[in-house]
Amino acid sequence: MTVKVAPSLLAADFGRLREEVARVEAAGADLLHLDIMDGHFVPNITFGPQVVAALRPHSRLPFDVHLMIEQPERYAEDFLAAGADLITVHVEAVVHLHRLLTRLKERGVMVGVALNPSTPAVMVEEVLPLVDVVLVMTVNPGFGGQKFIPEVVPKIAHLTRMIAAKESRALIEVDGGIDATTAPLVVEAGAQILVAGTSVFKADKVEEAIRMLKEAGKGVEVCGRDADRH
Amino acid sequence: MTVKVAPSLLAADFGRLREEVARVEAAGADLLHLDIMDGHFVPNITFGPQVVAALRPHSRLPFDVHLMIEQPERYAEDFLAAGADLITVHVEAVVHLHRLLTRLKERGVMVGVALNPSTPAVMVEEVLPLVDVVLVMTVNPGFGGQKFIPEVVPKIAHLTRMIAAKESRALIEVDGGIDATTAPLVVEAGAQILVAGTSVFKADKVEEAIRMLKEAGKGVEVCGRDADRH
Amino acid sequence: MTVKVAPSLLAADFGRLREEVARVEAAGADLLHLDIMDGHFVPNITFGPQVVAALRPHSRLPFDVHLMIEQPERYAEDFLAAGADLITVHVEAVVHLHRLLTRLKERGVMVGVALNPSTPAVMVEEVLPLVDVVLVMTVNPGFGGQKFIPEVVPKIAHLTRMIAAKESRALIEVDGGIDATTAPLVVEAGAQILVAGTSVFKADKVEEAIRMLKEAGKGVEVCGRDADRH
Amino acid sequence: MTVKVAPSLLAADFGRLREEVARVEAAGADLLHLDIMDGHFVPNITFGPQVVAALRPHSRLPFDVHLMIEQPERYAEDFLAAGADLITVHVEAVVHLHRLLTRLKERGVMVGVALNPSTPAVMVEEVLPLVDVVLVMTVNPGFGGQKFIPEVVPKIAHLTRMIAAKESRALIEVDGGIDATTAPLVVEAGAQILVAGTSVFKADKVEEAIRMLKEAGKGVEVCGRDADRH
Amino acid sequence: MTVKVAPSLLAADFGRLREEVARVEAAGADLLHLDIMDGHFVPNITFGPQVVAALRPHSRLPFDVHLMIEQPERYAEDFLAAGADLITVHVEAVVHLHRLLTRLKERGVMVGVALNPSTPAVMVEEVLPLVDVVLVMTVNPGFGGQKFIPEVVPKIAHLTRMIAAKESRALIEVDGGIDATTAPLVVEAGAQILVAGTSVFKADKVEEAIRMLKEAGKGVEVCGRDADRH
Amino acid sequence: MTVKVAPSLLAADFGRLREEVARVEAAGADLLHLDIMDGHFVPNITFGPQVVAALRPHSRLPFDVHLMIEQPERYAEDFLAAGADLITVHVEAVVHLHRLLTRLKERGVMVGVALNPSTPAVMVEEVLPLVDVVLVMTVNPGFGGQKFIPEVVPKIAHLTRMIAAKESRALIEVDGGIDATTAPLVVEAGAQILVAGTSVFKADKVEEAIRMLKEAGKGVEVCGRDADRH
Repeated sequence: MTVKVAPSLLAADFGRLREEVARVEAAGADLLHLDIMDGHFVPNITFGPQVVAALRPHSRLPFDVHLMIEQPERYAEDFLAAGADLITVHVEAVVHLHRLLTRLKERGVMVGVALNPSTPAVMVEEVLPLVDVVLVMTVNPGFGGQKFIPEVVPKIAHLTRMIAAKESRALIEVDGGIDATTAPLVVEAGAQILVAGTSVFKADKVEEAIRMLKEAGKGVEVCGRDADRH
Repeated sequence: MTVKVAPSLLAADFGRLREEVARVEAAGADLLHLDIMDGHFVPNITFGPQVVAALRPHSRLPFDVHLMIEQPERYAEDFLAAGADLITVHVEAVVHLHRLLTRLKERGVMVGVALNPSTPAVMVEEVLPLVDVVLVMTVNPGFGGQKFIPEVVPKIAHLTRMIAAKESRALIEVDGGIDATTAPLVVEAGAQILVAGTSVFKADKVEEAIRMLKEAGKGVEVCGRDADRH
Repeated sequence: MTVKVAPSLLAADFGRLREEVARVEAAGADLLHLDIMDGHFVPNITFGPQVVAALRPHSRLPFDVHLMIEQPERYAEDFLAAGADLITVHVEAVVHLHRLLTRLKERGVMVGVALNPSTPAVMVEEVLPLVDVVLVMTVNPGFGGQKFIPEVVPKIAHLTRMIAAKESRALIEVDGGIDATTAPLVVEAGAQILVAGTSVFKADKVEEAIRMLKEAGKGVEVCGRDADRH
Repeated sequence: MTVKVAPSLLAADFGRLREEVARVEAAGADLLHLDIMDGHFVPNITFGPQVVAALRPHSRLPFDVHLMIEQPERYAEDFLAAGADLITVHVEAVVHLHRLLTRLKERGVMVGVALNPSTPAVMVEEVLPLVDVVLVMTVNPGFGGQKFIPEVVPKIAHLTRMIAAKESRALIEVDGGIDATTAPLVVEAGAQILVAGTSVFKADKVEEAIRMLKEAGKGVEVCGRDADRH
Repeated sequence: MTVKVAPSLLAADFGRLREEVARVEAAGADLLHLDIMDGHFVPNITFGPQVVAALRPHSRLPFDVHLMIEQPERYAEDFLAAGADLITVHVEAVVHLHRLLTRLKERGVMVGVALNPSTPAVMVEEVLPLVDVVLVMTVNPGFGGQKFIPEVVPKIAHLTRMIAAKESRALIEVDGGIDATTAPLVVEAGAQILVAGTSVFKADKVEEAIRMLKEAGKGVEVCGRDADRH
Repeated sequence: MTVKVAPSLLAADFGRLREEVARVEAAGADLLHLDIMDGHFVPNITFGPQVVAALRPHSRLPFDVHLMIEQPERYAEDFLAAGADLITVHVEAVVHLHRLLTRLKERGVMVGVALNPSTPAVMVEEVLPLVDVVLVMTVNPGFGGQKFIPEVVPKIAHLTRMIAAKESRALIEVDGGIDATTAPLVVEAGAQILVAGTSVFKADKVEEAIRMLKEAGKGVEVCGRDADRH
């Protein structure tokens, strides 16, 4: 199976983002992962809709906007207007999750739900029929450059089975400490989109870094998933 | 008297901030105003410490960091580490304001206190002995390109007198809708630092835009202030 | 099996509530469902204890008070005093759920626990021995007139099995988009009380609307439930 | 001078509000005061926009909507849509007060600012140029039937002078424990609109109760106010 | 004039509080100051009602309970039951300050209002007719052993004049960094009760430490206060 | 199997804690359970780090610090510095649970996760590989002297199986209403550490009370646990 690679802007040079995006786009990135942090849901502030809007005209990559913010229902609309193609919210951050996801889908954008490392898979089960993406955090969100948490891998496998059982079309995206060493572990468990920050933006050869991540999926068969469904 | 001009990054192109800073630096800016918004204190998210740190090595301008965030005590340290020269917090956002300002000053950074348009001058009176800057908002914080609120001008004059009465060395900075038309109004009332976003970054000729703002102070005498104190 | 119908006041004319209650009481309603919203837990404000108390002397229906409010422990007592017969709180809104339910039961009132569409059944498992009612939302709470979410039906069936396994006496109540078309779906999955707003209060013939809902249960057998237990 | 009387719905029978409104309208009320409480800003929940909308078609009185809710910016729009003519928010409840008032005024509705008994007059000084009404609480908001706090009277007088000094057109409205005994005290201090709940709705003769309140203003001269300005 | 000394338990040995209280009681303390912190209003947690109740039977000193907690209305009753003689709340921590103070007074306990160093005197003006004590913080609350902030002295003098002008009977209490050196400064400005932690509990000779604080008031005349009123 | 007994300081005399600790230490306690409450996560305030630090030099018992506070990440460090050997946080109180537990472990302290009676076992499943202790509340936290909730026992058994399945080394600790009658119930379900407040501190003979609790484990075999693992 093939995996997609979404370089995370968190590891880019924030003084020249337009160039940074062009660099990973040219190197074969499939999506651009934009990490939005408000200093409340996570202990860091990164950037907001104006950054997304500033980059939108200069890239053809799908924009994968990951909202690490409290009450994302207040800002989801702004990120849609700024050019997001996929908007992912944390299950821990929103009380009326089903409403938010439905409203966004009705606007024609793709939607995702994210889980912290300590959050069990069952917490997203009821929205699997709705989402395009389940984003499994393999680090505690907030900062780039953190170490992959291997104990999360069984949860990825569990989600793979739950998605199949629910006949959901959701893809599994994994974020945190993903590099050539950890990628095969998550792909084998069912991950289909790999977010990579440091291992792409700080690589000597970005193109090669992306290619190596994509190859993580080669020859892998994922138990419990209908191989040709996607 | 002379006024200083602090272009606000909020009006810059967020895709190439390094160039934008270089542009206003070359055009005669005195400080760089960085608008930090968390989507909680104000209804917008802009950017955080990583943007400040990314620009710091590429500019010699003093960095004037305006924290429009709740509980700024949680992040002030991060902005200091990122390279701030002046850190300004909102009086409406912090319960133990005196503690935060004192701690920051002990770290060798300049400190400021900001007031929303609806906040009366008396709310900052007790910290005037401590602060280097009083930042008077002449728009409701949250967005660039808003219209100057003329009803705030008497508050600037009031603060000018309070600062003199308290024998404080605080400078008055004004932020919101400042351009060649409104600058003379605030300077006459006592403003010494002018934040300008749209009127600088979106100007045809940035250099001229900055020069015109500086000239707002020419020939102005401010009642109640000891002219040669600064 | 027989089902009970609880018309939701949310769809009534708020200018003459006493008459509205009399109207559905005469038409065969089994309970009166009162939707309390505080504008914090849900994005709408409806009414509070004073409305409940004003209606109490004029109706013999059991009052089924559904608290869509944050920290319901602060107000549960007020609704008890106002005349509630059943008080239902949201599992998403209270940290010490077991304490609140126990305290209310000790006061002699019936208690329920409600789940948003995105909340998994497991979240109420530990309180099943305590509650008289499990209220499954089939719309996102906040407004009347919303469309039934069919993806919630399996959760109703799941709760039916959990209740049996725990040997709980809890009845399943369903709220949101219930009409003659959707009622059979939820009753087959195990629902025993049907909340209905628009489909009752806005019906041409209220009596017939209520009767049709009650007939949804005719001939239905619910898997996994001990038929003669209730 | 003449005063206006605004019966407060808080003292009405919530089971037949339409009739209650008709009753005070017929008896000479000038405005209808609607007390919106969310159980967070004040320790009570009353009613929301749907009640306002239900009464709007049945009354010609101006609707004076008093928002005793946290972050009123989230719901002000809903009350406007429901038919409010005047929307009053608490200075203690909103951080960007100037923004909210401005936005509402731009929509063509009148706006007010309210102060708790413990809040000093200076806290509203900066918005006096903007508001149509300053609402001075003479009880702690939350419940009907409370006792008038005489210590608030000097603040009314203070506000009367501040309004004159600022050349504001704001009227002073007073709410809490107003009856034939207390009305003259507040009118002499400058009050021009009297909110009255219990003393009107629970009166034997509503018409007479309203007339007596209006007469509180007869022969009173308010120091420091330009008598013929209003 | 004479001043009273209230040793602050914050500087005592928390492992043997009963003995510590006995020690300062024997040494001439006038009140016992109990610093209640919840880790939310201030960045420290100290102790709650159970500690107050444990000490109450073993001391004849009036218990001066200083609530450095958010929403003190939730716990004031518990401290009353635990044996408080004076309950002081922070003006920055409670929205309906007048209500809380009134309710407590009706229960027969004395009440106070406290101000942080950055809070202006005007914020308590409206409750001066109600309170028995105004507690002026001369450090930022949260920890013992902090350095006295001399810039607060003019606020004490300002409050002394305000209290006289309002014909209030409130006493001024001062808390933070009070020792033999700083006591005369605050007494001259009008302070009548001195809270002292470290300078009493950590003194070589507690009796002498208390005596020296009391002597700070000898021969002092306070401008603007009616000398024989107290 | 053997069980450990952790007397809870909540039932001690707060006026002479040092002696109280010595008393239970001499009587055979295995750990000292310290109940930290902030008045926000639970409806009571008990004590903070200064009490822990005051007792630390006077006891050789491991200090088992149970944080019943919101956002425990803000204070965990303070309790570590005060001398905690085990720090337990509530799963309901922290969003980034995995981060907090990891950071504490890296500092060399043992860590635990606690569950309220209404919280299902699955909520801690993802952190079982990390924790040293799972603390199951058998009363609603907040007060001493409450009655044991027998409905929690199946959750203890469930957690025992989950711990075994995850190959976690976590011990199960139980807190609330534990005495000679209830101890066997929880030990049989898998509990290995028993917190006991009233039944120890208020016992006629503390030593005997502790011994009886320890004997609860005699002859018990716990299904599903590898007997010789601990």
